[in-house]
Amino acid sequence: MNSPETPFVLRDDADGVATLTLNRPNARNALSQGMLRALRERLREIAADETARVVVIAGAGPAFCAGHDLKELRAADYDESYTEALFGECAEVMQAIVRLPKPVIAQVHGIATAAGAQLVASCDLAVAADDARFATPGVNIGLFCSTPMVALSRNVAHKHALQMLLTGDLIDAATAFRFGLVNELAPAAELAARTAALARQIATKSPLTLAIGKEAYYRQAELPLADAYDYTRRVMVDNLKAQDAREGIGAFVEKRPPVWCGR
Amino acid sequence: MNSPETPFVLRDDADGVATLTLNRPNARNALSQGMLRALRERLREIAADETARVVVIAGAGPAFCAGHDLKELRAADYDESYTEALFGECAEVMQAIVRLPKPVIAQVHGIATAAGAQLVASCDLAVAADDARFATPGVNIGLFCSTPMVALSRNVAHKHALQMLLTGDLIDAATAFRFGLVNELAPAAELAARTAALARQIATKSPLTLAIGKEAYYRQAELPLADAYDYTRRVMVDNLKAQDAREGIGAFVEKRPPVWCGR
Amino acid sequence: MNSPETPFVLRDDADGVATLTLNRPNARNALSQGMLRALRERLREIAADETARVVVIAGAGPAFCAGHDLKELRAADYDESYTEALFGECAEVMQAIVRLPKPVIAQVHGIATAAGAQLVASCDLAVAADDARFATPGVNIGLFCSTPMVALSRNVAHKHALQMLLTGDLIDAATAFRFGLVNELAPAAELAARTAALARQIATKSPLTLAIGKEAYYRQAELPLADAYDYTRRVMVDNLKAQDAREGIGAFVEKRPPVWCGR
Repeated sequence: MNSPETPFVLRDDADGVATLTLNRPNARNALSQGMLRALRERLREIAADETARVVVIAGAGPAFCAGHDLKELRAADYDESYTEALFGECAEVMQAIVRLPKPVIAQVHGIATAAGAQLVASCDLAVAADDARFATPGVNIGLFCSTPMVALSRNVAHKHALQMLLTGDLIDAATAFRFGLVNELAPAAELAARTAALARQIATKSPLTLAIGKEAYYRQAELPLADAYDYTRRVMVDNLKAQDAREGIGAFVEKRPPVWCGR
Repeated sequence: MNSPETPFVLRDDADGVATLTLNRPNARNALSQGMLRALRERLREIAADETARVVVIAGAGPAFCAGHDLKELRAADYDESYTEALFGECAEVMQAIVRLPKPVIAQVHGIATAAGAQLVASCDLAVAADDARFATPGVNIGLFCSTPMVALSRNVAHKHALQMLLTGDLIDAATAFRFGLVNELAPAAELAARTAALARQIATKSPLTLAIGKEAYYRQAELPLADAYDYTRRVMVDNLKAQDAREGIGAFVEKRPPVWCGR
Repeated sequence: MNSPETPFVLRDDADGVATLTLNRPNARNALSQGMLRALRERLREIAADETARVVVIAGAGPAFCAGHDLKELRAADYDESYTEALFGECAEVMQAIVRLPKPVIAQVHGIATAAGAQLVASCDLAVAADDARFATPGVNIGLFCSTPMVALSRNVAHKHALQMLLTGDLIDAATAFRFGLVNELAPAAELAARTAALARQIATKSPLTLAIGKEAYYRQAELPLADAYDYTRRVMVDNLKAQDAREGIGAFVEKRPPVWCGR
C-alpha cells in the first residue's frame, strides 16, 4: 500500500501529452486494487481534460508492470467477492483505455507480465526498450492468463499468443516486435525520449479527428465487412462536417500548416 | 476531369490477365467520382467476361494512387449529398473487388495513400516496388482514414494499423511487407513483369475453382469456427461435383497437365 | 489401406506427452477415412486419459501429411454421401484438436499440404524442421482448399493465406515462420528432440489450468471485446477457486516449486 503522500499513479503533462506513471516500484507496479482505481480515475480525468491530447503509460522503477498483486490476492484469502471486484476493475481499466477518446501509448521497460502485458496490448501503440521482456506466465502459478489473453489475442497471431500463454516464458523485445505487440524498439536510455517524440507528434493532430478515428477503429473492427463500410462511410460524412476537416483540407490544398479548433 | 478521349481507367488484356490502369497521372490517380465510377464499370465488365481470369490494378504516372480527390471534395463545398455518394461509391468499389469472382492483384509503385492504401488492402494480393510507400494520412488533414481502415485493419495487426492511422506517416515497402500489407517486393524496373508473372500463373488455374475459393474465403472468414466448417465442407462437396475438380484430380493422379473446361 | 497389424496412428507416451504418429508413410500420411477415424479415436482416448497432458502430432516417413487421399476420393467415384462423410469427419478431427482440453503441438517435417497444412494450423503450436514446406495446393487440381483455409486464415494474415491458396505454391519453413503458421524452426535432426522439450515443458504445468486456459482462449477469441472480458473475468474467478491456483500462487510467493493435484 502506498502512503497518501505517494500516489499510485503519477501524472505529468507537457506539450499536450499526459504521462501516467505507475508508481509502486518496490512491487514492480503490480496492479493492486488501489493501483487499478487510481489508473481508472486518472483516465477519467484525462477523458474530460482538453489539454491532454495523448496519453503515455509508463512505470517507475525496474519494471513496467508485473501484473496483478499476488500477495494482495493471497491476503484476501481468494475471497470471491474480492476477486470478482478485482478482475472486474481490471477489465474496466483495460476497456477504459480502448474507449478513451485519445491515443494511449505504452512505454515499456524491464518486464511487462500477465496483466502488465495486457496493459501493453490494450494501449493503441507501444514503444519498448530493446531489453524489455514480456510474458503471460499465469500458467506457471495455476492461474491461466485468461483476461490478459483477451487483449493479447487481439494484437498477435493465435500461435504467437498461445506460445506465450501455454509456456509462460518471457519473450524478448525483438520477438514482441515481430509478433506485433510493440510498434517500436529503442535503446533503454532513449526510451522516454522516443516515446515522447511519438506522443508529441500525434498531439499535433486535431483532437476531434483523433477521437472520431479511435472510436471508429475499434467499433468497425468488430463488424462484418459490409457493416463496417456502412458504418465508417457515415463516420466520414460526419467527420467532413467538422471545422477541423475543412481547415485541414484547406491547409493541405493551400500548402500551409493547419490550425485546429477541436470542432 | 479527364477528356472523353482519355479514359479514367485503361484496360489491357493478355494471357487471361486484365490489367486496369488508373489513368489520371497528373492527379496521382486520385479516386474522384469519375475514377470510382470507371473502376466500378470495368470490374462489372470483367465479372461477366470469361476471357479475363485474373485482374491486376496498376497506376499510370509517378504514383499508384493518392486517395480521394481533395480538390474535388473542396470544390463541391463538402455538400452532404455529394460526400454521401462519394464515400458510398468508394465503399462499393472496394467491396466489388472483394466480391469479384476472380483474383485481383495490386501492382504498387510510388505512393499508395489513404483510399489508395485501402485499394491495396482490398485486393486479394499485392506486389510492390521496393521503393513504394504507403500511408493513411487523413489524420493530418482533420479527416481520419475511417473507410481505409476497414480494409487496412483486416490485413494487418491492430498496432500496425493504428500506427499508420494515428501518425499518418508513410511506411516504406519493407515495413508494408513486414506488416502483411503486400505479398512480394520487386525492384521498380521489374515490378510489372513480376506482377504479370504472378497473375499469369494464377490465370492457368480453373476459373471456376478460383471463383468458388475466393467467395468461400471471405465468407468463412467472418464466421465462427464451427459455422465456418459447416459452410466450407458443403463448399468442398459441391466443388467436387465440378468437372474441373474431377479433371484436376484425374490429371494429378495420372501425372499429366489438366485441361479446364470452367464447369 | 493399412493392415490390421499396422495401425494408421501410432501412440507413444513419455513424461506426460502423448505422441501420435500418422503412419501411412507410403501414402505420405494422407488423411484417408481410416486415418481420420483413427486420429479421432486417439484424440477421444487422450481426452479422457489423465496421464496424457500434452499431445504431439507427428508423421512417419518422408512427409508430415499430404492432405486428403485423392486416390481414395477417385476410387469412390466422388460419391456424394462418401464426400459428405469424408469432409465432415475431417472437420470433426480438426475441431476435436481445438476442443481437446490439452495442448496439441504439430511436429512438422517434409511437407504439410492441403489438409496436412490444415492439421498444422489447427494445432495450438507448431515446431517445424527448417527444410519443411507447406502448401494449400487444391487450386492446382480444381478443388480449392476451402476447408483447410478455415484453419489457415485463423493463423495468418489474409494476404498470406490468399497467396498460399491462390497460387498453390509451396512455401518454405522460414516463410511459414514469418507468416505465424509455426512457432519454432529446428534442424531436421533436432526436430523431435526440440518438439519433445517444448511438450515436456508444458506438461509440467497444472493440467487443470491448461484445460481452463485452452477452452477460454478459443471461446473468447470469437467474442466482441466487452463480451470477451465479461466471460474471461468469470473464468479467472472460477480458476482461483481451484486448489492448483492456490498451490501455484502459494509456491510462487514462498519461492518453492508447486505440486499440482489437478483440481
